[in-house]
Amino acid sequence: MQELSVGLGERSYFIHIGQGLAPQLRAMAESPAVCRGGCVLAIDEALLAAQPDFVAAAFGEMPRIVLPSGEGTKCFDWLEKLCEFLAEKRVARDGTLFACGGGVTGDIAGFAAASYLRGIGFVQVPTTLLAMVDSSVGGKTGINIGAGKNLVGAFWQPRAVFADTSLLASLPEREFPAGMAEVIKYGMLGDAALFDQMEALPLLDAASADLPGIVARCCSIKAEVVGTDERETATNNGRALLNLGHTFGHAVEKVAGFGTYLHGEAVGLGLYMAARLSEEMGLLSAGDVLRVKALLERYSLPTALRKPLPLHDLEKAAGNDKKVRAGKLRYVIMDALGRSRTCDDVNADTVRWLWREAGAQ
Amino acid sequence: MQELSVGLGERSYFIHIGQGLAPQLRAMAESPAVCRGGCVLAIDEALLAAQPDFVAAAFGEMPRIVLPSGEGTKCFDWLEKLCEFLAEKRVARDGTLFACGGGVTGDIAGFAAASYLRGIGFVQVPTTLLAMVDSSVGGKTGINIGAGKNLVGAFWQPRAVFADTSLLASLPEREFPAGMAEVIKYGMLGDAALFDQMEALPLLDAASADLPGIVARCCSIKAEVVGTDERETATNNGRALLNLGHTFGHAVEKVAGFGTYLHGEAVGLGLYMAARLSEEMGLLSAGDVLRVKALLERYSLPTALRKPLPLHDLEKAAGNDKKVRAGKLRYVIMDALGRSRTCDDVNADTVRWLWREAGAQ
Repeated sequence: MQELSVGLGERSYFIHIGQGLAPQLRAMAESPAVCRGGCVLAIDEALLAAQPDFVAAAFGEMPRIVLPSGEGTKCFDWLEKLCEFLAEKRVARDGTLFACGGGVTGDIAGFAAASYLRGIGFVQVPTTLLAMVDSSVGGKTGINIGAGKNLVGAFWQPRAVFADTSLLASLPEREFPAGMAEVIKYGMLGDAALFDQMEALPLLDAASADLPGIVARCCSIKAEVVGTDERETATNNGRALLNLGHTFGHAVEKVAGFGTYLHGEAVGLGLYMAARLSEEMGLLSAGDVLRVKALLERYSLPTALRKPLPLHDLEKAAGNDKKVRAGKLRYVIMDALGRSRTCDDVNADTVRWLWREAGAQ
Repeated sequence: MQELSVGLGERSYFIHIGQGLAPQLRAMAESPAVCRGGCVLAIDEALLAAQPDFVAAAFGEMPRIVLPSGEGTKCFDWLEKLCEFLAEKRVARDGTLFACGGGVTGDIAGFAAASYLRGIGFVQVPTTLLAMVDSSVGGKTGINIGAGKNLVGAFWQPRAVFADTSLLASLPEREFPAGMAEVIKYGMLGDAALFDQMEALPLLDAASADLPGIVARCCSIKAEVVGTDERETATNNGRALLNLGHTFGHAVEKVAGFGTYLHGEAVGLGLYMAARLSEEMGLLSAGDVLRVKALLERYSLPTALRKPLPLHDLEKAAGNDKKVRAGKLRYVIMDALGRSRTCDDVNADTVRWLWREAGAQ
């Protein structure tokens, strides 16, 4: 098991990463300091069905609320149900909510933990690769409203994170590669050696012995970025770097209709477009762009739209992204593989050309 | 105009207290730093009807959402409506939500400001005496759920508070005395001179020139208590002192049916019971208890139940109070007028006797 400390002063915590972590989770849930105020579990329905033995071993008879899989659960209705559940089980201020599932489960359960009694303990047990390398670090929690995704939430740090990579074996086929898009992103934005390593290693899967180390490396990069800019207030760079590829990716997700592309698949395309943008700006070499393309394709991630989408809609959706500052669209670009920065004056014509290149009409 | 600084490090802010503050509010709303990210208003329906001139002068054409008066508005449905309103008006991270109304408006609007985009600016314009001396300091925001009041929320500090005491003239008749219960509470828990002053002054009303100074004094006491224990984590005393009289009061509110007693009226009775409890414990003199009774009665506040309520229900409701720690009911008691502390080992028989004395059956 690897352990990684996320340093945020009095809100510091450990991320435990490895294969077969149920005993460690059980030990934590049964420790007097944790169980004193009451422990309850919010768990993703599909994960519970796929991994009953893990759930029994890790959580025993802990009172539980089962959340439907899918983005639709991240809504006010389920937030209210979670809060009523916490009250019904008489969880106290020093109690703990365990969240076991993917990003949806972690995001809404984390917001419930932040809000119930104005904040109780929270332990993340991410069960998708995407959640392990992304939502388990940084403390962003939240839900969707009619006007957009993740528009309502809180910054709330977990007490601990347990990422058991062996759970990834039961995920639907497209989920693992989709998670790899975020892994590749970390190499591109801040760790050239990680990028090299992924090129050199055999194709990774849930059983790979190298996977916990790579997840730890991604979490470490994210923790470093988040540590310097916890609430995303930095004028340049800072936490915004984590959005590499996301302005493009979010637009694709939205215009294609949420669910058509998995988040990671849209991010894969977005990463390629960000590399191409950096090339067009004279920053990244054509050779490095090809390396990005090859690695994405190795993990079956798209580097062009699967079906044409309207150019105008994509441009509009990108312009509605949260990353807009003072009316100007902000992109993350690369000076080299492993070195990125934010840029507020990207040429709109260049972006339009890149959308066309990706298959927009 | 009086100005009081609430010191909370980088989240420090000013409370402005006086008569006729619309110009100052307007100036703030129109300052470039505040209006850059967008300014919107959440306003109590009754206040808008009663004070149209103030609202026009202070807020002009600011986009607004009108909230129904009454505790029923503090629910998830209205929280969602507020968030959708903020998104519709495209309020940005550096935008500001102004909340103009009583505790209900401030509590739910504050929670919306804390949660929308994981936190935007928030300015409180409390328009009841209770809100001026209580909810405008301390940063507690929140809503009610089926299981209880204020069980879901956030700690979120305003950027500024404007308490215009001349607005109190249009309140329903029972509201001013109900607010005075909390004013009297501050004297009892931490400021004997304030208590003396209230005994010496003529009966206060909305037009009293002394009122802004007294409101400022209450806010100052609360700010001091909150400054040492922002998130109510102190083992003893700390923020819990602000609950003087509230364990009794909350039980009366709940058992009589919310709305039968105004919050301040129930607190008035609770304050008298807390004084009597302190007397029974050999701490407070009979003379001081009589002074408490006289001052409460001068402001038409109850010192006994208006109609008998079931003893068992009152005891049970008090036991469900949030102030329960490790299974023991926590009371705030007084060693003297102006000097209070928390106490975890109050004799249950004494409390039962006091309920009977107040008219429980």
